[in-house]
Amino acid sequence: MSDEQTSAAERSEMYRRGDEARTRVMGPGGAARRARMRAVHPDLERHLIENAWGQVNARPGLDVRTRELITVGILLALGREREAAGHIGGALNVGVTRDELVELLIHCTAYAGFPTMVTGVELLAQALEARGELAPAEGSSS
Amino acid sequence: MSDEQTSAAERSEMYRRGDEARTRVMGPGGAARRARMRAVHPDLERHLIENAWGQVNARPGLDVRTRELITVGILLALGREREAAGHIGGALNVGVTRDELVELLIHCTAYAGFPTMVTGVELLAQALEARGELAPAEGSSS
Amino acid sequence: MSDEQTSAAERSEMYRRGDEARTRVMGPGGAARRARMRAVHPDLERHLIENAWGQVNARPGLDVRTRELITVGILLALGREREAAGHIGGALNVGVTRDELVELLIHCTAYAGFPTMVTGVELLAQALEARGELAPAEGSSS
Amino acid sequence: MSDEQTSAAERSEMYRRGDEARTRVMGPGGAARRARMRAVHPDLERHLIENAWGQVNARPGLDVRTRELITVGILLALGREREAAGHIGGALNVGVTRDELVELLIHCTAYAGFPTMVTGVELLAQALEARGELAPAEGSSS
Amino acid sequence: MSDEQTSAAERSEMYRRGDEARTRVMGPGGAARRARMRAVHPDLERHLIENAWGQVNARPGLDVRTRELITVGILLALGREREAAGHIGGALNVGVTRDELVELLIHCTAYAGFPTMVTGVELLAQALEARGELAPAEGSSS
Amino acid sequence: MSDEQTSAAERSEMYRRGDEARTRVMGPGGAARRARMRAVHPDLERHLIENAWGQVNARPGLDVRTRELITVGILLALGREREAAGHIGGALNVGVTRDELVELLIHCTAYAGFPTMVTGVELLAQALEARGELAPAEGSSS
Repeated sequence: MSDEQTSAAERSEMYRRGDEARTRVMGPGGAARRARMRAVHPDLERHLIENAWGQVNARPGLDVRTRELITVGILLALGREREAAGHIGGALNVGVTRDELVELLIHCTAYAGFPTMVTGVELLAQALEARGELAPAEGSSS
Repeated sequence: MSDEQTSAAERSEMYRRGDEARTRVMGPGGAARRARMRAVHPDLERHLIENAWGQVNARPGLDVRTRELITVGILLALGREREAAGHIGGALNVGVTRDELVELLIHCTAYAGFPTMVTGVELLAQALEARGELAPAEGSSS
Repeated sequence: MSDEQTSAAERSEMYRRGDEARTRVMGPGGAARRARMRAVHPDLERHLIENAWGQVNARPGLDVRTRELITVGILLALGREREAAGHIGGALNVGVTRDELVELLIHCTAYAGFPTMVTGVELLAQALEARGELAPAEGSSS
Repeated sequence: MSDEQTSAAERSEMYRRGDEARTRVMGPGGAARRARMRAVHPDLERHLIENAWGQVNARPGLDVRTRELITVGILLALGREREAAGHIGGALNVGVTRDELVELLIHCTAYAGFPTMVTGVELLAQALEARGELAPAEGSSS
Repeated sequence: MSDEQTSAAERSEMYRRGDEARTRVMGPGGAARRARMRAVHPDLERHLIENAWGQVNARPGLDVRTRELITVGILLALGREREAAGHIGGALNVGVTRDELVELLIHCTAYAGFPTMVTGVELLAQALEARGELAPAEGSSS
Repeated sequence: MSDEQTSAAERSEMYRRGDEARTRVMGPGGAARRARMRAVHPDLERHLIENAWGQVNARPGLDVRTRELITVGILLALGREREAAGHIGGALNVGVTRDELVELLIHCTAYAGFPTMVTGVELLAQALEARGELAPAEGSSS
């Protein structure tokens, strides 16, 4: 088998593994967003799935709940709001509780300042609303 | 008095002091945003008021105008746009002048680059419009 | 000629050179945004044009295509989304190809993480749509 | 009991709790560093112990091992090398394994880029050497 | 007078003004560091003096003490340790008191996290030691 | 061929390609640093070579000189000094000229502030000294 052929086979395998890891965390949705990425260039979506998911998140060394807590902490610290929203949803998907996310947000204040908590609370509130787990009366009284 | 009781009393005192400091800077508004924060978890709002406001901003060592200028500078440098908008309003509330905020934005270009100024100008323009201090003709000619 | 007079003449010259450099990259548009900036304070727009454009971008030491690639990389790394959107358009204006921008986004993943690529893809997709270079069917199938 | 007295009592309690939390993670050392901090101004050390440790790290909502993994991730992402070194030691102190820290470093590459891993590896290598858990032959063959 | 001549005259004027502003803040030292910068390329040092100092710091809109407080806050938030050290010295030079710098460091914890304070304390301690204003016994008891 | 076998073969191929790309940029040195990384855990070095180098830098879409300029810009903006030093050397290795690096540093001032230039000048000066291309007299006159 030539390098080229091996490479294609392996990429498929790595892509498959990454896709599985991503679906477990982010859910089956996101097809439109991935299609949009492929529309710009197919390598973008493949690179994301193979590397961020297949080569990193799919590794067994840390459980998926801990990974998501770390990921949300890093994304809020770096101000990657768009991605933090997705991974707060991802954290809830894999069983991180609302209280654990609250605790993470308070933890972030010590190491990255209060703005990370304030932004994170808004993203968490939106994620809970989308799941019907935050009563409108609770959060929209003004 | 037990530790538990002392703690509750002290928290009340710290909360009261923080609430006062926050109202002086951010104005009496924001009730809905704070209720939303409490709806996610009461500790979030209490931690914000007791610590960021009661333990830090309420301290006497720097006057409130200087604090707000420093705060806006840090928030723009870190790209915390959501919070920067609030504190540009806060700065105007405590008597920082429009010209001083302009000067801060120009100062930021040297230490954090032009994008901090460009973002800051837009946030300042919005704050001035909300106060009726930027003529629509001035800023919306296109 | 007094210092004051020299200064005014030079500022005009630096402003003219910066304005030319900016128009070459960002196109003739943006008049409203610049008017809005001047409405807040004239020094803001002048400082931007004279320094960021006249004293930096107008220098001959790097070609404009390379400058735009570096600029987009830095802006995505720092999370300056507002400015990154403008310079992705600027890059396309000066002849950076879609494939080169795709390559830049993949490059960013190694040095600043995947969120920079994910944000960059969305900004690039919007820029391509605005130019009619991304078929709606390609990117909006969901 | 007056506010002033309550405050002093509560501060003592919060300081005591923070000191305990800090010692559990960072070990009994660091006395010189804390004395140096007090020498500059006593409020600095008290603010650190009462707030970062007493009000945040001492909270029960997340176990200490998960907290340290999140903390190291955030510190590496933000480039706080000085503090990251301390918390890599702290993580090892509370039972995070070498393999879990390795996994964290690989995880960081996806969300904050490879430089965070490269810096983290060096800090981890130094921490392991200080504990005699990295053979000199292993790391100094050149 | 041609553009070229005007430009040279103006640059001299802007350089002179920047040099004066820089000396007022940073003191007469730093000649070696500036010579080193010129040795790499003369434009580097000229760009620094003319722009960061002549076009920004020399502006009258904010007093120099407030400017230095803002500058140190931004530099600590962005993790520019090398520069933060210089400007902590600069702040002391222009009359910012030790207590005001302490207050700034505590303020930074709310908006950028505790690592900025911890790093800032060490830099302030070193600056005070260099001035003989921090007793060795105070800071080196371990 | 099973997935496991394919994977091993592909990893070897990707590692080989990454190693080649890395050597072209960073030179044949760095063996000790890579051995140290492997001593902490073999996956660390393999992940770096396969992904940052094999999957990203080895791609043909951007020439290696442009890649290095972008990389140095991003690393200085993010304050990754350790890595920036390595890639300034890498840029010189692949034919980026001293004047182009100077231009890059001036460019960084507009988009990330002067501290990135000041740090970059020091790293460039050290790289030039190590190559004997900066006369000691030039840079050490104080």
